[in-house]
Amino acid sequence: LNPHDVVRALLRERADRAPRERGEAYAPANIALCKYWGKRDAGLNLPITSSLSVSLGDLGARTRIEPLDGPDDRFVLNGREAEPNGSAARRVGAFLDRFRGADGPRYFVESESRIPVGAGLASSASGFAALVKALDRLYGWDLPPESLSILARLGSGSACRSVYDGFVVWEAGERADGMDSLARRMDEEWPDLRIGLHIVSSAPKPVGSREGMNRTVETSLLYRVWPERVAADLPRLRDAIRDRDFEALGATAESNALTMHATMMDARPPILYWKPETVGAMERIRALRAAGVAAYYTIDAGPNVKILYEESSENAIREAFPELQIAIPFAQ
Amino acid sequence: LNPHDVVRALLRERADRAPRERGEAYAPANIALCKYWGKRDAGLNLPITSSLSVSLGDLGARTRIEPLDGPDDRFVLNGREAEPNGSAARRVGAFLDRFRGADGPRYFVESESRIPVGAGLASSASGFAALVKALDRLYGWDLPPESLSILARLGSGSACRSVYDGFVVWEAGERADGMDSLARRMDEEWPDLRIGLHIVSSAPKPVGSREGMNRTVETSLLYRVWPERVAADLPRLRDAIRDRDFEALGATAESNALTMHATMMDARPPILYWKPETVGAMERIRALRAAGVAAYYTIDAGPNVKILYEESSENAIREAFPELQIAIPFAQ
Repeated sequence: LNPHDVVRALLRERADRAPRERGEAYAPANIALCKYWGKRDAGLNLPITSSLSVSLGDLGARTRIEPLDGPDDRFVLNGREAEPNGSAARRVGAFLDRFRGADGPRYFVESESRIPVGAGLASSASGFAALVKALDRLYGWDLPPESLSILARLGSGSACRSVYDGFVVWEAGERADGMDSLARRMDEEWPDLRIGLHIVSSAPKPVGSREGMNRTVETSLLYRVWPERVAADLPRLRDAIRDRDFEALGATAESNALTMHATMMDARPPILYWKPETVGAMERIRALRAAGVAAYYTIDAGPNVKILYEESSENAIREAFPELQIAIPFAQ
Repeated sequence: LNPHDVVRALLRERADRAPRERGEAYAPANIALCKYWGKRDAGLNLPITSSLSVSLGDLGARTRIEPLDGPDDRFVLNGREAEPNGSAARRVGAFLDRFRGADGPRYFVESESRIPVGAGLASSASGFAALVKALDRLYGWDLPPESLSILARLGSGSACRSVYDGFVVWEAGERADGMDSLARRMDEEWPDLRIGLHIVSSAPKPVGSREGMNRTVETSLLYRVWPERVAADLPRLRDAIRDRDFEALGATAESNALTMHATMMDARPPILYWKPETVGAMERIRALRAAGVAAYYTIDAGPNVKILYEESSENAIREAFPELQIAIPFAQ
């Protein structure tokens, strides 16, 4: 099964609908508390393990799509027209091809992203999730969220989680066609929860996430026990969310991230995404905890540090990290 | 079998000899290129895996021991008398007890160490190796080096490697009494090899090596594949030494150290010995390599960085690390 077959299987007779004038949608970025790290199928972005994330409220992407006359798509990101043959436009075009086929309609796509692009902050996750939702509106498909999640996954694995607000679990699934590899929202709210984004660097990473993931799966011996670690961490996080046990949530998310980075360091050649400031932030967070402030970190495939805390700790966190960009996952 | 039984089994009839006036000996510190990480027996310091090190030439400990009248040992380290009930004096006293029994003779022990104490630079390794050699001379035992290696191991695991100059392999062994767990020198010289010691911090570590090792063995899932990693790295290092293949030596040592730190990060709670300056030094070494300078690092259970290079790169290394303390393992 290729991605185009997956799209057809999900759309069925809807595939024939005519477009409206435009479709517009918003999708939040998300931060994994139990990481997605390793693919069992690169074509369909099927993961080796399940993962769990929290969506970042109003830090995300708003995307508008309109049919366009002419031979080429146009893609405008944050008010700037993307180079037609640049990597961003090519990735969006390839994704649209899965829906329209090679000789289908062209589109004008405009996206506003409130998060730093390419800095390990899952900008592609919110981008592809918003694009799928915008397509769903453009054509009036009115697909169930599970189908949108599968479609978003075809653009970027973690995009399948950005279809939802709140806490989201992406079940790895077992099927070769990935029809059971999709995300669902947990029915839980945590209004006091905050995610601070500590940007150490927005420069392109020396090793992209895809390459880092693949090299880890192929060469790391330590990666072999990663699925077992996830199998222990995921239920622990679910329980912590249900029990509003912030220490359990934070400690599990932090150690899960460290284990993911550990598998990278065991890749050959080893992969290190940390910068000196990354370790400096980790030290500051440990010092905050030693001083009684409940704060934990998680780190994705990059040098930036995401800080988990509750609203009651906001002053202490802001003092230690004055430049912090703060996400409120459950804003009222 | 306890450590005292091991001493008796090795000394046999030699145990009755009368001491000379004094015994004096030198032992170098050593840096593991394939790390010792994890014990199968804490009482006898028996390792789970074999390891390979290089001794640091004239960076080590010179120790003198004399019988003493009176009820208490005296221990002078770098010209300062140690607190009789401090941890250093207690550890030396407990080690001497394995030779003399509880009511045996008291000693005056004086040791000069040319390496920073307690900074993850194996000061205890050279210390115990020098003490065993000094005892051997005090009593005229004239034990073979393999026996000295076993005796030194009873004080500190990695001390069994500091009995020798040059490249040293510590075979893990299989016996419960550890009589086959000892180090041997490789018959190889590498006169151009240099080890730069980049001291990031000499402060006591938040988690001591023993505790870090034990917690990793008990709680890290990733640790389970460590023996497999060692089984691959050790022959690669032996080959690199025989072939004088510096890139293979450095890359293998560097990745082996990263894998050891990876197992720590997967301990629960995770263990992180790195400081921002540690990662900064790692970055600088990678930058040197990118600029064509063959330099690699290894890191023990602490924040300090040991840089491997050859004499021809000395100027570039000194420029990047002006404060470097330089060891010459094979000085003529």
